[in-house]
Amino acid sequence: MSKGTVVLAYSGGLDTSCILVWLKEQGYDVIAFLANIGQDEDFDSARKKAENLGAKKVFIEDLRSEFVEHFILPAVQANAVYEDRYLLGTALARPCIARRLVQIAQKEQAEFISHGATGKGNDQIRFELTSYALYSDVKVSLVEKAKPCSAPTDLYLMTKNPDEAPNVPDVLEIEFKNGVPIKVTNVKAGSSKDKPLEMFMYLNEIGGKHGVGRIDIVENRFIGMKSRGIYETPGGTILLQAHLDIETFTMDKEVRRIKQGLGIKFSELVYNGFWYSPECDFLLHCINKSQENVEGKVQLSVYKGQVYILGRESPKSLYNEDLVSMDKQGDYDPCDASGFIRVNAVRYVRIKSRGVLYS
Amino acid sequence: MSKGTVVLAYSGGLDTSCILVWLKEQGYDVIAFLANIGQDEDFDSARKKAENLGAKKVFIEDLRSEFVEHFILPAVQANAVYEDRYLLGTALARPCIARRLVQIAQKEQAEFISHGATGKGNDQIRFELTSYALYSDVKVSLVEKAKPCSAPTDLYLMTKNPDEAPNVPDVLEIEFKNGVPIKVTNVKAGSSKDKPLEMFMYLNEIGGKHGVGRIDIVENRFIGMKSRGIYETPGGTILLQAHLDIETFTMDKEVRRIKQGLGIKFSELVYNGFWYSPECDFLLHCINKSQENVEGKVQLSVYKGQVYILGRESPKSLYNEDLVSMDKQGDYDPCDASGFIRVNAVRYVRIKSRGVLYS
Amino acid sequence: MSKGTVVLAYSGGLDTSCILVWLKEQGYDVIAFLANIGQDEDFDSARKKAENLGAKKVFIEDLRSEFVEHFILPAVQANAVYEDRYLLGTALARPCIARRLVQIAQKEQAEFISHGATGKGNDQIRFELTSYALYSDVKVSLVEKAKPCSAPTDLYLMTKNPDEAPNVPDVLEIEFKNGVPIKVTNVKAGSSKDKPLEMFMYLNEIGGKHGVGRIDIVENRFIGMKSRGIYETPGGTILLQAHLDIETFTMDKEVRRIKQGLGIKFSELVYNGFWYSPECDFLLHCINKSQENVEGKVQLSVYKGQVYILGRESPKSLYNEDLVSMDKQGDYDPCDASGFIRVNAVRYVRIKSRGVLYS
Amino acid sequence: MSKGTVVLAYSGGLDTSCILVWLKEQGYDVIAFLANIGQDEDFDSARKKAENLGAKKVFIEDLRSEFVEHFILPAVQANAVYEDRYLLGTALARPCIARRLVQIAQKEQAEFISHGATGKGNDQIRFELTSYALYSDVKVSLVEKAKPCSAPTDLYLMTKNPDEAPNVPDVLEIEFKNGVPIKVTNVKAGSSKDKPLEMFMYLNEIGGKHGVGRIDIVENRFIGMKSRGIYETPGGTILLQAHLDIETFTMDKEVRRIKQGLGIKFSELVYNGFWYSPECDFLLHCINKSQENVEGKVQLSVYKGQVYILGRESPKSLYNEDLVSMDKQGDYDPCDASGFIRVNAVRYVRIKSRGVLYS
Repeated sequence: MSKGTVVLAYSGGLDTSCILVWLKEQGYDVIAFLANIGQDEDFDSARKKAENLGAKKVFIEDLRSEFVEHFILPAVQANAVYEDRYLLGTALARPCIARRLVQIAQKEQAEFISHGATGKGNDQIRFELTSYALYSDVKVSLVEKAKPCSAPTDLYLMTKNPDEAPNVPDVLEIEFKNGVPIKVTNVKAGSSKDKPLEMFMYLNEIGGKHGVGRIDIVENRFIGMKSRGIYETPGGTILLQAHLDIETFTMDKEVRRIKQGLGIKFSELVYNGFWYSPECDFLLHCINKSQENVEGKVQLSVYKGQVYILGRESPKSLYNEDLVSMDKQGDYDPCDASGFIRVNAVRYVRIKSRGVLYS
Repeated sequence: MSKGTVVLAYSGGLDTSCILVWLKEQGYDVIAFLANIGQDEDFDSARKKAENLGAKKVFIEDLRSEFVEHFILPAVQANAVYEDRYLLGTALARPCIARRLVQIAQKEQAEFISHGATGKGNDQIRFELTSYALYSDVKVSLVEKAKPCSAPTDLYLMTKNPDEAPNVPDVLEIEFKNGVPIKVTNVKAGSSKDKPLEMFMYLNEIGGKHGVGRIDIVENRFIGMKSRGIYETPGGTILLQAHLDIETFTMDKEVRRIKQGLGIKFSELVYNGFWYSPECDFLLHCINKSQENVEGKVQLSVYKGQVYILGRESPKSLYNEDLVSMDKQGDYDPCDASGFIRVNAVRYVRIKSRGVLYS
Repeated sequence: MSKGTVVLAYSGGLDTSCILVWLKEQGYDVIAFLANIGQDEDFDSARKKAENLGAKKVFIEDLRSEFVEHFILPAVQANAVYEDRYLLGTALARPCIARRLVQIAQKEQAEFISHGATGKGNDQIRFELTSYALYSDVKVSLVEKAKPCSAPTDLYLMTKNPDEAPNVPDVLEIEFKNGVPIKVTNVKAGSSKDKPLEMFMYLNEIGGKHGVGRIDIVENRFIGMKSRGIYETPGGTILLQAHLDIETFTMDKEVRRIKQGLGIKFSELVYNGFWYSPECDFLLHCINKSQENVEGKVQLSVYKGQVYILGRESPKSLYNEDLVSMDKQGDYDPCDASGFIRVNAVRYVRIKSRGVLYS
Repeated sequence: MSKGTVVLAYSGGLDTSCILVWLKEQGYDVIAFLANIGQDEDFDSARKKAENLGAKKVFIEDLRSEFVEHFILPAVQANAVYEDRYLLGTALARPCIARRLVQIAQKEQAEFISHGATGKGNDQIRFELTSYALYSDVKVSLVEKAKPCSAPTDLYLMTKNPDEAPNVPDVLEIEFKNGVPIKVTNVKAGSSKDKPLEMFMYLNEIGGKHGVGRIDIVENRFIGMKSRGIYETPGGTILLQAHLDIETFTMDKEVRRIKQGLGIKFSELVYNGFWYSPECDFLLHCINKSQENVEGKVQLSVYKGQVYILGRESPKSLYNEDLVSMDKQGDYDPCDASGFIRVNAVRYVRIKSRGVLYS
């Protein structure tokens, strides 16, 4: 007599395999779901493993394009960085996976979901908040006891050590429209990509080859603990630098100030697991609106762990060479600047007399 | 054989009386603590009631001065208002009471505390967060089951209905220093108060008499529910209006902008129960710093539910009558304003040509 | 030989009449433009006066509907209040008038505009920034010298003194959709209005009759001076209170937090004259987006200078009576609150040992 | 007959030399002031040049220690970065120089100051706002006409091209107290510095040797133009990375959120020339307060244009290895996380029924 059906976010690894077995032992039917979001995994053998362990069904799905298009690109528009340093890779992947998990649970009429994320980390929160947001009646099958296995250390898998990176830079040109990349060209090789997933994989490849995007940080988890994170985000780091550049080139400065604040808020929300929340919806809309004129091309070189901006061009540029030139006067009257400054200094003049204001 | 000692935040009412009995039945020694923060209560009969119900000890303490001086006055400096409307009366009282509760628990070597606040409201959070902040090992004795009693409706106890209020206003002069009131004078009566508790009680009396400070709102609780609140804050409303006025009169406008944002954040934290948190400490410090020059006198009339500012004066005023006058030129050159405006409009001139910037 | 054509923002009063004459004397052709935005003015005699003073053409236009629909209603959505108190009436009117002024200048091929606003105030900035934004080549004809006339004091024209207001309240029901009023009903009289201008005029009438919306404040001008302002905004005050109420009732709390910050920024921009700026466009878009679910009805009474909210209802309400009730348990598990609180307190536990984190 | 005395911010270059001559020709007595803030300059020959051109007096002063201690270190505490990328080197130097310029003007009873900064740039504003703030009656002698010379291009003077940088990293340990560096140690060499100026010069040397801190950006000037900036900030870049790390390790996360916003505001103010403003004073005070516990040591390697954090330790760390460990349970109850998540999801449950709330 089954206790019901659980859809388990299965990784193919030891932890979630233990959970699968334990759930079966407790009397649940288990459906294993394994998402391909670009990790290095033998999906066929993972399928067999899950089947051998007793999974009733196994779903393995390639979510890579969806991940890039619907999660990474909006984060690029937002210049999303948590606590000034973390580019949120995992935090962006969780709602993508959890959304599909929930869809499968609904389709398969499963009332439970389960996952291998620990009770102390952010990923549990990200999985479960997404699940409650999209399937409010779902129950989460917690499997703390069945988790004897130690947490795997994050390792650098994609990026070379910068001191082993090539001595010759790659030069890329990234073209943006609406704040998202639409074409990545290797200037020397002359080759280019223009599909989101291909572009992103290519940037990961180039960034990885040059050791770009490694960080070793302490971060503040949502639950208030500090934890150490070692991350690598080669493609994301290149995109962040290029997007920052084209955005500043094309966006009004006061719009940018407001949008910068929205981007910081967005990053906190994503980190904390609120991708599918009303406020994140609202911010995504506003940030997307801010990107209307963010288009053009950025040239950059990638070398020994660094991204160097070489130049930018845009049909929507707000840069006005004549206006900004020190040599040309144009319409700009220098006396205006003096007036501007003096008016800005009006506040500095304090009066000595006593202020009295009555009707 | 006792299970241990609980200090209970006792109100004298039915709910916490039920809890007291239930805790005794469960095998705890119960110490009842009843704080006087200005509520209408017969403290002697509350003491007898608690003793009759089996409290091992009963502490009744007058926290009114402490409440006004250490909780209300900083909120006045902050212009603390939650969601644009709620003046946070209860939210300010909870950490004041909980702090003393914890001190008693520590002195009496009690390892438990308990309270009558429901599991759905803000007050549970405010009590418990304060307790954990000040006494990290304390355990909270939850008493959901023993709570058969329905929640009492909030009623207007202090304020008259405005349409029953006097037809003649009272005119007050409130003097501030460092952003807190130091003297309240009834201009017609010629009487004045200068001790924090007395001033606040007097403002409650005058505000109450004129029906000031009633609100009927929907608010967002910390736990994400919306709830209806009916509140009256007569003295707080008068102080808020007076403080806003003297602050704007004496504070630099850009400092005010920054401080306004800090005050909004502070209000959210207080509402959510984080008075004793590192961030609230930090904000209290910053807000207090901003008040250095907030001094002077505000005259206002209180009438039929409203507070009308009549005038203000200050030795630290930044108001400069000569400078602001439309009739006098003084040092201010009108051409400066034209320059100021034209420079502010530089951003509006968009170029048509294509921007290209490469090294 | 004419020096060119000036379109003058003409008020019908002494100041702008002096300016008209002076501009003619300087050799300009003068087109007088007088906008009706609801002020108390004899427009026919103003037309004759301008013609007699030598205006080549006189345009008198009723901008009231445009003012209400395109300027006041977005400010209602934003809860726009400058420095916590000023409802921005004049600040909203200036870009409305200046836009039409510029359209006339462009149609009439005038290269100059002029106005009677002083070099020390906000209105000069608001007029001129709008003009530069919409007609970047326009020249402003400054007329400081011709201004011998003293600035008229602002007086209460619309509102009764609260102590002369009726002893019986009016009860209104305001229905909102997308955050703007779509119907105003006088509950006792049974009459209602549903066109923006009519609704707004009616709210001004009712608010004025009851003395609502008078303020006497000190404010910070854009140019850094403090100045005193005496304003009355009867209809705006009623709308602000009603909108705040229905918004809090229907909007997610975290969206509200973000939107509150955007509204404060919007208010500063409007006050400073940046209505027609990229950042104000952006904020108007975002704020409008936030209002999608702000719909429903608010009942309120207007009495002796005050607006009292009596109740609200909405098909989009996020208020859940069962969930919030203290008597019903529903799906909400009180243990969850304990866990929520304990996790929020994790940060409070400081360790004593020395933290070391190296790779 | 002299028109008065001008103190000129003299650089030793062609521009300010032209200005010196022109001011003399106009009938002013000129005092040349040349500040040493670390630039590469032959100060003796600059003195002779100024004297030969007719300067009445020449002041050459070493402001390097003052610049580092009073301007750079507070910016380090703030993590000051303008528009996400620019580390504000020049923007920090201007108020330091202008303050001394004004002191000299006051001592020498000069009523004028002058400088070579163009009317289109930020430096004019920074010079003049500082001057008005500290010497409100000063007059600025504008010298637009005398400026025939083209603006010199910014070049990389301090930093090597990363591809010419050494193939072996330097490993540094930077010790902080109150958020400022108090000791810089070269781990391999075993040498260390502990005086602010020496530390900063050493970090510039090491950073420069490894090509750290070069940027090529487009930035938004205060006056609304976009301009291209090519900067190098080797020492500042190392300090920023190290400070970010030790700050996140030791500061409460919610304090950090608030402080991050203050730092962004501070950076804008400094960029725009408002160092000596009430709001910048206020922010400096608040940011300094936030740094009380920011102490400890950061190890990092500097290599090929990059700074890699290797580890950190602190007596004030909030990092708790036992608490954060996935293997140890400690006091942390995983059920609390479930409750925390479910309470965070309460907002997601929307009701279908119509909300009505009347008294």
